[in-house]
Amino acid sequence: MKKVGFHLVVDAWDAPSDLLNDPERIRQGILEAIAVGDATLIDLCVHQFSPHGVTATATLAESHIAIHTWPEYGYFAVDVFFCGKGKPAKAIEHLQKVLQAKSVDVKEIERGFPMSKKFEQPSHSIYQGIV
Amino acid sequence: MKKVGFHLVVDAWDAPSDLLNDPERIRQGILEAIAVGDATLIDLCVHQFSPHGVTATATLAESHIAIHTWPEYGYFAVDVFFCGKGKPAKAIEHLQKVLQAKSVDVKEIERGFPMSKKFEQPSHSIYQGIV
Repeated sequence: MKKVGFHLVVDAWDAPSDLLNDPERIRQGILEAIAVGDATLIDLCVHQFSPHGVTATATLAESHIAIHTWPEYGYFAVDVFFCGKGKPAKAIEHLQKVLQAKSVDVKEIERGFPMSKKFEQPSHSIYQGIV
Repeated sequence: MKKVGFHLVVDAWDAPSDLLNDPERIRQGILEAIAVGDATLIDLCVHQFSPHGVTATATLAESHIAIHTWPEYGYFAVDVFFCGKGKPAKAIEHLQKVLQAKSVDVKEIERGFPMSKKFEQPSHSIYQGIV
């Protein structure tokens, strides 16, 4: 398999509802997680739903971080997909700490595709080779 | 388990490199996928990397769609996370068609958390109940 990156799929619960409904705290937490994870921000969208719930999507040079909160359940979902450099586990750990989730389930998914003959010995000209 | 939504984690390959390096085609494809999937767009970021590769992150009322392309491998990664309404499989099917991937691997992940006594009989006042 040709691996292009790691994707951490995280469900977190037993978190205080007021934190999960605070868009500014979540914005700051994501910016800190990006720094802790050695990643580079391209764009950040933070949106508050009515009557409650926050969604934030960070587009990164390394791929993305997305978080969706359900304050009414004390639950939030996070995805951290990093290709190349970066420390996705550190980013997740920071978000769990900031949002004070007592319980988490973390799934680690390798992203990529089956290696074929074409890609077994990549060279500097691989891009032109397959166009 | 309290399910809040479905997350489709998709790796797709054997796709034409020129399509995977065309940010406008990818932007249009995502907008179409959102429509086909009966979802609602909040914000869309499309970014082209140098020398090649495109990342696009759509923040939705239903959660998010993210796509990251590696034209040099004819590969792209897509995540479609929909909570509540919507047809995530239709959105994925459309993106595969638009970007002409001949091969795909789709993982379906249920997002949510273990049900506790507190949430077994939700009522209209559940939010106030746990703050």
